[in-house]
Amino acid sequence: MTARVEVFVQLKDGMLDPQGKTLEHALEALGYSGVENVRVGKWITFAVEGGCREEIAGRVDEMCRRLLANTVIERFTYKLLEDGE
Amino acid sequence: MTARVEVFVQLKDGMLDPQGKTLEHALEALGYSGVENVRVGKWITFAVEGGCREEIAGRVDEMCRRLLANTVIERFTYKLLEDGE
Repeated sequence: MTARVEVFVQLKDGMLDPQGKTLEHALEALGYSGVENVRVGKWITFAVEGGCREEIAGRVDEMCRRLLANTVIERFTYKLLEDGE
Repeated sequence: MTARVEVFVQLKDGMLDPQGKTLEHALEALGYSGVENVRVGKWITFAVEGGCREEIAGRVDEMCRRLLANTVIERFTYKLLEDGE
């Protein structure tokens, strides 16, 4: 099967997010008040071929831990969609 | 009301994504074959206070066009969740 994968990576709660802070200040400077706790993460999408759903999920999990996220400071989640979904 | 907002920003189809290509090659080098079309986008989350859902949605759309995305080369989507959802 071929699956479309979406990976979401974000700094763990409590980790300072300077990019988010910068956006927060920029939004305020543009006149958007009431915006809080801006966090900037990564949204990584790709297609992957493999056996069954479980096998692909295991591989994606491993890919996240080894390369896509730095699990010391970041947390990740992912979604698997079968092609056609 | 207070809403939690998730904004997804990605390069438009057809735009070269060097960061995605780099990850694709790195994954292959690590032994993960069958991975294709890696795209790296931004996942921006924040809380925003405002009147009704429609008013907030309009404001978020404007924030995306003015600051969070570069609509010449990027497309964006967003999700609004009421606090507690």
